[in-house]
Amino acid sequence: MSAGFLFLEEALEFKYQEGLLPAIVQDVRTGKVLMLGYMNSQAYQKTVESGFVTFYSRSRRKLWTKGETSGHRLAVREIRVDCDADALLVQAELNGAGCCHEGYESCFYRKLTPQGEELVEEKQFDPNEVYGQ
Amino acid sequence: MSAGFLFLEEALEFKYQEGLLPAIVQDVRTGKVLMLGYMNSQAYQKTVESGFVTFYSRSRRKLWTKGETSGHRLAVREIRVDCDADALLVQAELNGAGCCHEGYESCFYRKLTPQGEELVEEKQFDPNEVYGQ
Repeated sequence: MSAGFLFLEEALEFKYQEGLLPAIVQDVRTGKVLMLGYMNSQAYQKTVESGFVTFYSRSRRKLWTKGETSGHRLAVREIRVDCDADALLVQAELNGAGCCHEGYESCFYRKLTPQGEELVEEKQFDPNEVYGQ
Repeated sequence: MSAGFLFLEEALEFKYQEGLLPAIVQDVRTGKVLMLGYMNSQAYQKTVESGFVTFYSRSRRKLWTKGETSGHRLAVREIRVDCDADALLVQAELNGAGCCHEGYESCFYRKLTPQGEELVEEKQFDPNEVYGQ
């Protein structure tokens, strides 16, 4: 998707969190918030160039394109930036039944209640089948 | 709202970013993503106890309840946590026409295009009238 989005590195505030910006991914069709990841400027650039959401993994310390193992990729439709230019909102289409590595559509599949956690979604796939044991 | 939400400090991963978690705020009525802020455990606790979204300001280094100046507060309806317990999704009702201090409903009022930034929202209020010059 070179027809993509302006690369506004100078406009984006990659200054906090060791050069990482939080990127919210929202399903463009349903409005559901699917996940939150982090992008450094390389991840942002790869996202724009490939058309698929790519993050920087803080734990693995490398770029990872969401879905590279599961196939559940996120096709970028629009990228928005917030007022302070230090957060991104990516409108995307999810390829597959679930975005979360736990098998749910959204990573936000639990709500917090006075009694503890409560599931708000049903599993869409078996993680063991998709990611292996 | 003491009838609020379980305080799961031990379950939440306040380990990155100097003890801060990103908290996405989504309008519970429209599904629109309004803003992203950061909570430390005190901000989370105040959010739960007061029923209004409270962040930790990284620039001012103190708690701030969204809307304390503008009156545009965010009444909490539900708090979700992601699979890794290191991000929050707050479903809230916005009191007022706009969440953003620039006068827009959402802080994500611009999209990035190959030609530059493009407005995707119309101003809802005059920031100078709400926040003063």
